Amino acid sequence: MSEYEDDYAHASCGGDELLEGLFSTPAVSAVLGDRGRLRAMLDFEVALAAAEAGTGLIPQEAADLINQTARPEAFDRAILAQAAGRAGNLAIPFVTAFTKQVAEKDRMASGYVHLGATSQDVIDTATILQLRRAASYILRDVQRLETRLAAIIADHSGTILPGRTWLQHAVPTTLGLKAAGWLTNIAASRKALSAALESASVLQFGGAAGTLASLQGHGLEVGALMAERLKLRLPALPWHSIRSDLVRCGTSLGLLCGALGKLARDASLMMQTEIGELLPPGGKGRGGSSTMPHKRNPVGCAIALSAAVQAPGLVSTLLSAMVQEHERGLGGWHAEWQTLPSLVRLAAASASQMADMIETMEIHSDAMRRDCALTHGVVMAEAVAMALAPSLGKQAAHEILEQASHDALSRNETLGNVITRDPRVTALLAPQEIAELLKPENYLGNAREFCARALECWQKGN
Amino acid sequence: MSEYEDDYAHASCGGDELLEGLFSTPAVSAVLGDRGRLRAMLDFEVALAAAEAGTGLIPQEAADLINQTARPEAFDRAILAQAAGRAGNLAIPFVTAFTKQVAEKDRMASGYVHLGATSQDVIDTATILQLRRAASYILRDVQRLETRLAAIIADHSGTILPGRTWLQHAVPTTLGLKAAGWLTNIAASRKALSAALESASVLQFGGAAGTLASLQGHGLEVGALMAERLKLRLPALPWHSIRSDLVRCGTSLGLLCGALGKLARDASLMMQTEIGELLPPGGKGRGGSSTMPHKRNPVGCAIALSAAVQAPGLVSTLLSAMVQEHERGLGGWHAEWQTLPSLVRLAAASASQMADMIETMEIHSDAMRRDCALTHGVVMAEAVAMALAPSLGKQAAHEILEQASHDALSRNETLGNVITRDPRVTALLAPQEIAELLKPENYLGNAREFCARALECWQKGN
Amino acid sequence: MSEYEDDYAHASCGGDELLEGLFSTPAVSAVLGDRGRLRAMLDFEVALAAAEAGTGLIPQEAADLINQTARPEAFDRAILAQAAGRAGNLAIPFVTAFTKQVAEKDRMASGYVHLGATSQDVIDTATILQLRRAASYILRDVQRLETRLAAIIADHSGTILPGRTWLQHAVPTTLGLKAAGWLTNIAASRKALSAALESASVLQFGGAAGTLASLQGHGLEVGALMAERLKLRLPALPWHSIRSDLVRCGTSLGLLCGALGKLARDASLMMQTEIGELLPPGGKGRGGSSTMPHKRNPVGCAIALSAAVQAPGLVSTLLSAMVQEHERGLGGWHAEWQTLPSLVRLAAASASQMADMIETMEIHSDAMRRDCALTHGVVMAEAVAMALAPSLGKQAAHEILEQASHDALSRNETLGNVITRDPRVTALLAPQEIAELLKPENYLGNAREFCARALECWQKGN
Amino acid sequence: MSEYEDDYAHASCGGDELLEGLFSTPAVSAVLGDRGRLRAMLDFEVALAAAEAGTGLIPQEAADLINQTARPEAFDRAILAQAAGRAGNLAIPFVTAFTKQVAEKDRMASGYVHLGATSQDVIDTATILQLRRAASYILRDVQRLETRLAAIIADHSGTILPGRTWLQHAVPTTLGLKAAGWLTNIAASRKALSAALESASVLQFGGAAGTLASLQGHGLEVGALMAERLKLRLPALPWHSIRSDLVRCGTSLGLLCGALGKLARDASLMMQTEIGELLPPGGKGRGGSSTMPHKRNPVGCAIALSAAVQAPGLVSTLLSAMVQEHERGLGGWHAEWQTLPSLVRLAAASASQMADMIETMEIHSDAMRRDCALTHGVVMAEAVAMALAPSLGKQAAHEILEQASHDALSRNETLGNVITRDPRVTALLAPQEIAELLKPENYLGNAREFCARALECWQKGN
Repeated sequence: MSEYEDDYAHASCGGDELLEGLFSTPAVSAVLGDRGRLRAMLDFEVALAAAEAGTGLIPQEAADLINQTARPEAFDRAILAQAAGRAGNLAIPFVTAFTKQVAEKDRMASGYVHLGATSQDVIDTATILQLRRAASYILRDVQRLETRLAAIIADHSGTILPGRTWLQHAVPTTLGLKAAGWLTNIAASRKALSAALESASVLQFGGAAGTLASLQGHGLEVGALMAERLKLRLPALPWHSIRSDLVRCGTSLGLLCGALGKLARDASLMMQTEIGELLPPGGKGRGGSSTMPHKRNPVGCAIALSAAVQAPGLVSTLLSAMVQEHERGLGGWHAEWQTLPSLVRLAAASASQMADMIETMEIHSDAMRRDCALTHGVVMAEAVAMALAPSLGKQAAHEILEQASHDALSRNETLGNVITRDPRVTALLAPQEIAELLKPENYLGNAREFCARALECWQKGN
Repeated sequence: MSEYEDDYAHASCGGDELLEGLFSTPAVSAVLGDRGRLRAMLDFEVALAAAEAGTGLIPQEAADLINQTARPEAFDRAILAQAAGRAGNLAIPFVTAFTKQVAEKDRMASGYVHLGATSQDVIDTATILQLRRAASYILRDVQRLETRLAAIIADHSGTILPGRTWLQHAVPTTLGLKAAGWLTNIAASRKALSAALESASVLQFGGAAGTLASLQGHGLEVGALMAERLKLRLPALPWHSIRSDLVRCGTSLGLLCGALGKLARDASLMMQTEIGELLPPGGKGRGGSSTMPHKRNPVGCAIALSAAVQAPGLVSTLLSAMVQEHERGLGGWHAEWQTLPSLVRLAAASASQMADMIETMEIHSDAMRRDCALTHGVVMAEAVAMALAPSLGKQAAHEILEQASHDALSRNETLGNVITRDPRVTALLAPQEIAELLKPENYLGNAREFCARALECWQKGN
Repeated sequence: MSEYEDDYAHASCGGDELLEGLFSTPAVSAVLGDRGRLRAMLDFEVALAAAEAGTGLIPQEAADLINQTARPEAFDRAILAQAAGRAGNLAIPFVTAFTKQVAEKDRMASGYVHLGATSQDVIDTATILQLRRAASYILRDVQRLETRLAAIIADHSGTILPGRTWLQHAVPTTLGLKAAGWLTNIAASRKALSAALESASVLQFGGAAGTLASLQGHGLEVGALMAERLKLRLPALPWHSIRSDLVRCGTSLGLLCGALGKLARDASLMMQTEIGELLPPGGKGRGGSSTMPHKRNPVGCAIALSAAVQAPGLVSTLLSAMVQEHERGLGGWHAEWQTLPSLVRLAAASASQMADMIETMEIHSDAMRRDCALTHGVVMAEAVAMALAPSLGKQAAHEILEQASHDALSRNETLGNVITRDPRVTALLAPQEIAELLKPENYLGNAREFCARALECWQKGN
Repeated sequence: MSEYEDDYAHASCGGDELLEGLFSTPAVSAVLGDRGRLRAMLDFEVALAAAEAGTGLIPQEAADLINQTARPEAFDRAILAQAAGRAGNLAIPFVTAFTKQVAEKDRMASGYVHLGATSQDVIDTATILQLRRAASYILRDVQRLETRLAAIIADHSGTILPGRTWLQHAVPTTLGLKAAGWLTNIAASRKALSAALESASVLQFGGAAGTLASLQGHGLEVGALMAERLKLRLPALPWHSIRSDLVRCGTSLGLLCGALGKLARDASLMMQTEIGELLPPGGKGRGGSSTMPHKRNPVGCAIALSAAVQAPGLVSTLLSAMVQEHERGLGGWHAEWQTLPSLVRLAAASASQMADMIETMEIHSDAMRRDCALTHGVVMAEAVAMALAPSLGKQAAHEILEQASHDALSRNETLGNVITRDPRVTALLAPQEIAELLKPENYLGNAREFCARALECWQKGN
């Protein structure tokens, strides 16, 4: 069908904007997209010129002109992209183009553009600026999510549902305790991310090989002024091939995607048609099917789970890329350029979708109760076994209940009925005692305390 | 510096076009970008309608109108992107928008758009169409690279340089044999890719849950016509959550990136300032530094190495994503959507850059010779040891040469001089014999045969 | 509690034998464990000596003695392990120890041990021998699994259950079609593995830097005899740093783990307490809980899923490790040594557990039927919509059924009742027609044909 | 050669002890091996019984007997391994076997073994105990390494060598500054590891589904006593499927392997035969070749690099495995069991090898000087360009030096000679000024300050 196929070749380039709605958020895309990237690179160049003017290395007028000229819209992205493929990084054609823009206004001033800096200085510093900005949006969504989870803990510390291990009913638990786990998990990774961002919020400025030799001894002074202007810290030394702190931001984003993915998995399992303990948010254009009229798909869960599947590979790339040669590496540094932004976008999409879901999903505590009763009471087998153990021994009690559970399930009879016929049980437990033992609300252990402790711990940590 | 920071938030979205020059090629970007994606999705819808008309399920006029309406330019990408984030995939808003476009021309015909298909049918088939097209460009560059490597093998089967193991000089080898290794490695992964593409070039068409129930028994007939039109095979059954064949394309791309990365690593090491056996291609805008006037950076190697660092993580994502639930999965499928195209782009960039590099790099056989002589002949120590072994025993011979090598290096003297003073050696070898043993060209073993075998094997395999 | 902690330091080494029962099979552990490794390395040395005797390079008596001396039990593993950490690979201390063992019998013969070979020759060839052997066990289990899946397809092509997409009921499907998907997926990855093993079953023999220089022109002849004896092919050239074929075995094992993991996920979801369409195999010591008497855990699924989680990371390591420097690399080669065996073990455990599970699990077709009816018939909404579409238009029909499905679920009423009250529906469909449309068995499309095609395709491919 | 092949099948199991010397350290293997694992699991059971006696739940005599019985040697590892494969985890057969051991002494006491705990409680707590212990050894080696790097910074802040970017000479730097980068990188990841270990050093104790229901309200009290005895903290709630803190230990180990790998790459490049700025430690059995008498391989670098290649995949597995279902997951948890110990072992081997290497490698500052002079002074081109820029403009100066560098290299002449003939240069710079500009020691910028800052920062952070 050549008429279609040929068409591909004539198409202009065009990124993956179509998927940004799924794997990013508008705010984060704005920061990380081409325009945000150019804006951040210009921020570096403006700060450099201002600092060099501040230390007397270049005329103030040149710095001012550089500042006034710095506009992302002034760049032809297609030309930059093509040249970057030949130069090996974006900074080289970017500096060339920017220098030309300045030169059109004042030839002399253009000689002060990017003075003393190297490509990696502008690219890395821009990355830090973008990362910090994008992360602030992510943290906002995570905050929203945590706050709502805290409310669920408080509201549902007595809402009973089957605890499930190995995807099988175990013993009862509460929705509050489930939410306490989700909150604790997400808050831990969010704290790790905040700490990593704090460590990584430093200027990159080292010149050709990290000595700032071309600044004739003024390097530290210039760096300090730049850092101040960009609201970054000045690191002990340039970190061109020293990537621990930056990559730690990536591993923390990976942890966050994992913690959000765990929530998404649980929620999606509770939303299964047969279970229906939670219901995905509905509404116009949300979760419908292109062919099945009755569908209400857990879209947010799909996106958060897909982020949890994608993030580990991206994190592994960042870790592999840490082995960067000598003063500035060959390939490892390059491998970060699209990997870190992809990771940030995924974390943003996941956090935003999970916050939306938790805020709008339906909670069906009646279905939770129903599921607890689904197995004719065998979910309470452990409770009865524990009551018999002091007299019969743990092992003997375990075996009686194992057989009784099997009988109840195979005969479609309640566990209560089965054990009430067993003289080994009735010799030790009165009918009323058995009835109490079989009530899920009597077998919740420290669930309520764990909820309270989790909330307290979260509030302190905020 | 709020005046800069606020600016990010106002920026419109905008993908990563700036990096496409580094991590893709124009042809592949055209196929995989937004427009190529829409084109491929429209190809599916057009083929579906044509096939349904062909089997009498819908009027031919409707199919014709659907065909005429199918234009990628007609879609508002920003609206699609936003809606996809709510719907959970791109197909749902795409079908809605396309149906509306058709309805504007003929309300009745619009009822036949996407009839009987599910979102995954159009998305997966489009992916296959894009993948096949993009891979054809990659294979073209790999072909170019292999052809040039074959020429190097033929031309340089006698060009001697130090064989290096553990990054240390071992014994002499030839540039031809090195190139034979590169070629064999790349050709093996290229063949794996071709075979995987062949297996994966099948239609996806199963309807809501893979039974084609909504086509009332005509499913296979419609599928066969669609496959014919799209030049794909009709698989035994729909493969909505059966991803082996697709993911094998991904693992093969990973192998190709690895094989190209091995070439890039070797070349970049040979291009080191201290070694200079190869020189990176120069030329306007290629490999210069933003600050150092003398630099000529191995840009192609950096990109191929960065692809080799990035690809493994992306492959691992595709493998992780294979665990897709039931008839169509939750999250795993989604995780493929940007991962597979990223992998294709990286392989394309790597193949293109390596082909360019191999075609234009400078080969300095004089430097190779010089490096062979660099260590005062100790690179020939094994040759002498092997000559002494029959008389002295392997171990004793090894120890004599180990000591002699150490002495030569520490005293800055040739190995020839050192051993000529050793009566254990001179008792067995005449000076002329020693001289012959120390000539690298006399110690190349089967290097020439290996070159010939590699070339023959490659020619057969083409 | 220092009395406990100190104890760790005094413990002798001891591998992870305790986990071999979970993440390997006895047969595969025997091949890949220390003894199997030594056996395979000795096989190489024996074949080398025999081939060198065969070409007249060494005395036949020496080769015979080397053969007679080659016993894995003769090595002190702890000493080898320690020395390997200093030497950088296992072959160096292994050759030293083996040479000493031979020398104890005949000093002269010991001079012919490992003659002309390099460490990597013995290590790589041993890996190939172990891999081929271990894979034969894996393929046996996969064969067992495929055969049983084929029987399920044949037996259950009419067993109806809800098709599920996004973990929600979609439209009906059959157990046979589900099994056809599992089979097709697993068979595809099994074929990829077989093909990769075939490509990789070659001798490694190149000497110090891949030229076989120390064999004075007899290298190819010796190699051919070795290959014949070891039942391997002789490759075009040594592949010391050319890893495509070997790593393709790894990626194929990754595909297999993914395909088995997909089966395990589906089965474990069908085994959920609320669903019970499948039941895990029970029996002594299988799937019980240490505390809950009623538990019957899907152990096999847990192991297969854990293999599917672990394999992608190991595959990514093998791909990353392909970038090996020059003639023999630094670190990349080393990274394969435990990674590839881990991958083989995981695939073996997964295949074995899934074969066992499929052979012994209980299939509850009554539960499948029950689940189809669970949602008051809304799972049939698409069927009704398709019947109305020709008259009302696809979109209008979709909307009627969307509302009706919502009403049925919220009012706890059957979809049949709801639509029977809707004049737009009853104007077009008689009550009997509606009743027929709501029967799952009438809405299975091409499910039966797909089963037949999958079986036919599988039988041909065997 | 069937006589060899058959042999594999008869071999007993046997782990990978042979590779422990390469990819672990003896101390860490002792902690993580089978015996260490059993010891840690027994520590949990002993602490549980003691705590339950302390709260009056069980008789003190029973707790004492449990304590006295707890001996790793008492377990048959092969039987445990086999049973674990059927039970799905090690704890179930372990508890069965331990209960039997106790019962042989006192039947009644055996009823109190493992009371109220679940499998995951003992496995997770044991993992934490092993991890903490093993990490203490790693941190000791990292400390040793950091201390030696600090000494190198102090000693070599004036030792000049070529700064290298993209594997090409850039401008001069110092060995001190290189070492400052290594130290900063490693210290950052070490701090991340310490912080993660601190967060993860908590008890796991939740019973069947995390509520501690079977302890009838005494759960928190028992947990507090256990935590105290095991010197762990009591977490807010059980963390059975809440893995953030544990996985953060894994990501931190990944960062450490990356930082050590960066050092290993740099060192191995500096150890190349052509460069020889560093020399690997020699000595008996260290770095020799099985065939080449002159070899001295950088073994430590190979191991550290291989760890840096292997760690990212293992980290990605841990991140993928975070998505654990409900109260206790299916497969994800299992995927941690060998992955985390593998990561710990690799980090241990890498840290130990790098500490050894840094302590014993030879530093050849003469070779560093020589390499600086290797390119006829073009490494100083930037210095001259910067001196000309104020008068000629940055761009014009850049172009003059670009041409001059090219001329110097192609004519084999010094850059000094070339520019001394250029009137544009001599118009601005006197011969003496040019001579000063071409001295590397005059173009080190802030290298010395950066060294001092790095040392100060490191000392504070200790």
